[in-house]
Amino acid sequence: MKIGIYGYGNLGKGVECAAKHNPDVEIVGVFTRRDPETVKTLTGIPVYSTDQILDFKDKIDVLIICGGSATDLPEMTPVLAENFNVIDSFDTHKHIPEHFRKTDAAAKSAGKTAIISAGWDPGMFSLARVYASSILPFGETYTFWGVGVSQGHSDAVRRIDGVVDARQYTVPVEDAMNRIRNGETPKFTARDMHERVCYVVAEEGADKALIEKQIKEMPNYFDEYNTTVNFISLEEMQKNHSELPHGGSVIRSGKTGLSNEKSHTFEFKLNLDSNPQFTSSVLVSLARAINRMNNRGEIGCYSILDVRPCDLSSLSPDQLRERML
Amino acid sequence: MKIGIYGYGNLGKGVECAAKHNPDVEIVGVFTRRDPETVKTLTGIPVYSTDQILDFKDKIDVLIICGGSATDLPEMTPVLAENFNVIDSFDTHKHIPEHFRKTDAAAKSAGKTAIISAGWDPGMFSLARVYASSILPFGETYTFWGVGVSQGHSDAVRRIDGVVDARQYTVPVEDAMNRIRNGETPKFTARDMHERVCYVVAEEGADKALIEKQIKEMPNYFDEYNTTVNFISLEEMQKNHSELPHGGSVIRSGKTGLSNEKSHTFEFKLNLDSNPQFTSSVLVSLARAINRMNNRGEIGCYSILDVRPCDLSSLSPDQLRERML
Repeated sequence: MKIGIYGYGNLGKGVECAAKHNPDVEIVGVFTRRDPETVKTLTGIPVYSTDQILDFKDKIDVLIICGGSATDLPEMTPVLAENFNVIDSFDTHKHIPEHFRKTDAAAKSAGKTAIISAGWDPGMFSLARVYASSILPFGETYTFWGVGVSQGHSDAVRRIDGVVDARQYTVPVEDAMNRIRNGETPKFTARDMHERVCYVVAEEGADKALIEKQIKEMPNYFDEYNTTVNFISLEEMQKNHSELPHGGSVIRSGKTGLSNEKSHTFEFKLNLDSNPQFTSSVLVSLARAINRMNNRGEIGCYSILDVRPCDLSSLSPDQLRERML
Repeated sequence: MKIGIYGYGNLGKGVECAAKHNPDVEIVGVFTRRDPETVKTLTGIPVYSTDQILDFKDKIDVLIICGGSATDLPEMTPVLAENFNVIDSFDTHKHIPEHFRKTDAAAKSAGKTAIISAGWDPGMFSLARVYASSILPFGETYTFWGVGVSQGHSDAVRRIDGVVDARQYTVPVEDAMNRIRNGETPKFTARDMHERVCYVVAEEGADKALIEKQIKEMPNYFDEYNTTVNFISLEEMQKNHSELPHGGSVIRSGKTGLSNEKSHTFEFKLNLDSNPQFTSSVLVSLARAINRMNNRGEIGCYSILDVRPCDLSSLSPDQLRERML
């Protein structure tokens, strides 16, 4: 399977690394909007300009689009689906239906197969929500995120006057998770489920009390949560907060039985050292599914919810039944 | 969707209860090998003899076969697949390929759709193993069972002379699970991963020391595990050990990155008050998938690994993208 990497940030590098453990994957090249001469890949795969992408129309089985959800993917994915089987990790939930429609139209008219919104949330967590609610229709599903770095919240803190650098960790409230694991189905507020912990490097002489107040009162981002602000040195930031760990849990508590007397909990949990590397690992396994689906004539746009689990695996259906079932 | 329940033990009763929370499911009847007059259903659905099953050939969309794996299902499923879309929970791992081949041949020649080996293990745990290993190919997957009642082990203890009743709980070793959650990939023996805890009611005057020795040394069942034997009264057995809880975890520890420097854990965990009721809930959601697959012309035998996740849900693909993705 010949893969192209469109965009070469953390996610694109993750795809490059993931290929090493997937012997059926060959990376044809990286496509960048920067000057290709200035980009050096981790494993020496060639770098091309995004302007050259159409030269690779028949040389790439699946193009993995590694752009941002805010502005890149809404533009890129539908356009690239006119010429390639594509996959992206579009994660702006409220715009997923629109992104789906545009990509579906493009892929269908070109006879291509696309998967959007792949990764872990949306992605693996979506799968957990669908399996759990389909099997236990009487119950409630809860999604907890973290402990992990939220890049959006970190960026929001960085925009405050007097802030040199910032990292925001989303922390799930353990007691809230345990209540669900014990069979309860509480109505939670945002504050009940997550805490926010910030590490901030302030400019010399900055008003730290004011910065802390501005963070804690920031609408949408922090005002609905219990937030802790820790001021640290730039050295400590670089030493202890340079990674992008993340994770979380989808937990459903459901009941069965004639009088709903039996309680069941279904929990899917991820603990990730590197959010982008895990996301790109999901993209690579789904690229395998896209290639198979397109070969079978399953064209148009899909999400992970539409993909047969067996199609993610390098093993054959017979092997899967023998070794995994 | 019209469902038939073939066999009316704990599993069949679970299907009957599950229908209550699935408004698209209508139970047409229960089919029993016993005298139908002697069987009373929980919700008053009609009871027929298994001899009458062919009268329902065009009145049932999916037949849920609720028999035992040892002798019932290997006989029943391929034969019933000649006339019905069917699903079973066949769980004798080493005979799955053979059971698959027979059922596949029957279903294909009849234009029917079958799913075998559905439930939680095989079933949901199989799914977790496939997703985890496909996304993180460099790593190890571990399956832990319990805390839960093993009916096979309970039966084995009951066969010992002087034993009136017995219940065996399989208990996962928490330290072993935590090592994997911490990113290790140890080589475990059976003893490292699970303990066995037995509650035994002995006959008056029985040699308890001898019973305990016979349990602990029993080949295959107990000799490779640390086993605890507790002698209790019949009253205590009936009061505290009459339920069939089960559950467990599939945990994969995998690494990514240029030098495999990033560690990720993927964990799927079930905690079930009632093993048969959860299993039957899985069967009902997959029956929905079978009905859709057969309507689309996807005939033959499948496992849960071949089924699109969206097909388990009563929601439409549009609804799933909006609410679950």
